[in-house]
Amino acid sequence: MATNRQLGEFDIIEQIFRPLSGQDGLQLSDDVALLSRYDIVTKDLLIAGTHFLPDDPPDMIARKALRTNISDIICKGARPAGYLLGLALPRSCDADWLQQFADGLAQDQQAFGVGLLGGDTTRHAGDGPLVISITLFGKMEQGQEPVLRTGAQPGDLLAVTGTIGDAGLGLAVAQGQLSVAPDADELLIQCYRVPVLRPEFAPMVASHASAALDISDGLIADAGHIASASSLSLYIDLDKVPLSPMAQTWLSTQPDKGSALATLASFGDDYQILFTASPERIPALKSLAEEKGVPFAVIGQCREGEGVSVLCNGKEITPPKRGHDHFVED
Amino acid sequence: MATNRQLGEFDIIEQIFRPLSGQDGLQLSDDVALLSRYDIVTKDLLIAGTHFLPDDPPDMIARKALRTNISDIICKGARPAGYLLGLALPRSCDADWLQQFADGLAQDQQAFGVGLLGGDTTRHAGDGPLVISITLFGKMEQGQEPVLRTGAQPGDLLAVTGTIGDAGLGLAVAQGQLSVAPDADELLIQCYRVPVLRPEFAPMVASHASAALDISDGLIADAGHIASASSLSLYIDLDKVPLSPMAQTWLSTQPDKGSALATLASFGDDYQILFTASPERIPALKSLAEEKGVPFAVIGQCREGEGVSVLCNGKEITPPKRGHDHFVED
Repeated sequence: MATNRQLGEFDIIEQIFRPLSGQDGLQLSDDVALLSRYDIVTKDLLIAGTHFLPDDPPDMIARKALRTNISDIICKGARPAGYLLGLALPRSCDADWLQQFADGLAQDQQAFGVGLLGGDTTRHAGDGPLVISITLFGKMEQGQEPVLRTGAQPGDLLAVTGTIGDAGLGLAVAQGQLSVAPDADELLIQCYRVPVLRPEFAPMVASHASAALDISDGLIADAGHIASASSLSLYIDLDKVPLSPMAQTWLSTQPDKGSALATLASFGDDYQILFTASPERIPALKSLAEEKGVPFAVIGQCREGEGVSVLCNGKEITPPKRGHDHFVED
Repeated sequence: MATNRQLGEFDIIEQIFRPLSGQDGLQLSDDVALLSRYDIVTKDLLIAGTHFLPDDPPDMIARKALRTNISDIICKGARPAGYLLGLALPRSCDADWLQQFADGLAQDQQAFGVGLLGGDTTRHAGDGPLVISITLFGKMEQGQEPVLRTGAQPGDLLAVTGTIGDAGLGLAVAQGQLSVAPDADELLIQCYRVPVLRPEFAPMVASHASAALDISDGLIADAGHIASASSLSLYIDLDKVPLSPMAQTWLSTQPDKGSALATLASFGDDYQILFTASPERIPALKSLAEEKGVPFAVIGQCREGEGVSVLCNGKEITPPKRGHDHFVED
């Protein structure tokens, strides 16, 4: 039999778990499950060394864990409402560590209007890393449906909020593999540790997007999830992908611009909203986004076919990699 | 600061997480959180080496993980409805292991009428044990409320379904610390690996119990949780605690009967329903239980005061220990 290393996360879902999917499970094809009486729920599990660095500040680990879940809810056009917390604690997490962790939760509970509803705290019998499991519930506005991965149509434009690649650069800086500039480095690490979410954009997603998800595995890989779920192809124009000043500084030092842009678009942990919308929706979205102060950029379009094409300077290129798989670590 | 080893699970909830409790979180004082539009939800996290043995058969690990969560829902008088699954996988869990695990889930999904609604599968970057996080949703019958830990009244009787202590004996057998008799040993290990639940008793809990929970930490410890949440004292008459033939065989070999009974009543993992009900409810419960074929026994009573007294042969005894804390492992 294939070992775990050969069987990736999506294979496991496809081959092992999809047959078990229940009535409200959307065939396990989305980040959320519809619940008949609540609205939507998501569950992301984070492991030290895989989703955050074991020595990251505890309050930031907590906020990242909460935000990666809130991100899934926002991207469906919903409002985060409450959550359950499961913890598998290593021996090194003492009371001081736990209090800092809780302080981080409290800070983001207030920022996003969510409350802790319960959970389970337990400890490794032997050696084991910190594992954080959050289940987060969201509510839709009356009469609105969650925006799934499946709704994109050929002709729809592909757009993304915020900037892309900062968290991936931040991880490289935090691991000592990269330095952009002293103040840039600090900001980049912050982007990796505590992603910037766009809850104020959720109503616009609900009203105008045909498909949406959050970028956790990398822009190109997550665009591929929309393409696959909506049975169409997408192209991404790398020259239109929005970059922060820090990422632009880094890009200016790279010999091959196309390859460097593709690298930024394959980093994980951006937690921005990637969505599709029909072209006639874009003017309304632009004016609403300006009003709310949320930047977004049109970066590509949906077509008949399958797969994701990546363009740079008008030419199709082959990215060094397409995404960051949290399941099969590099 | 106190380290993690000194701060137990309940201290962490009390000191660290209770201030974060949201509107529907019942002050984190119950196994479930009320959701305004679903009904109830529970989340139990299981770690290899703490809640099951790493080499237990994968299908049985899956069924135990599901059942420990279903148990929480049943004990509130509700019907299990669906669940989310989070997995942190060690490298040793290959595709064959995963398929066996999924087969176990499928078996119990059918047995208990639940469907998988989603989740998150991820893998340890380095060494790390299997961690299973399940979030399970339950529905109440129309017009009924979940039975909490807080509703017991002085004068209410304390009762328990099934038999007590088998899972704890089974763990000792599985670890090679004990042998009762060859066929008994096999049954006891089975009780540890796949707890026997009583879903058919849930409607009786909903209609007649004043307080209820499942026994996961041990009969005496979990009775203490009812006493504390309901602000009263309880006594348990160990001579009335129902025992299986296997446990009776083991008991007959023990020099000190009182101490041995107290040991059975302090083992974890029974997953039976411990509940209180006013004395006039007992005849109706007895006849319904006989009709459904679910054994239960009255084993004590609630009084004014606080704490749990343990009686044997009419005399109060001090148990060697009161429960099995999955957080601070022995």
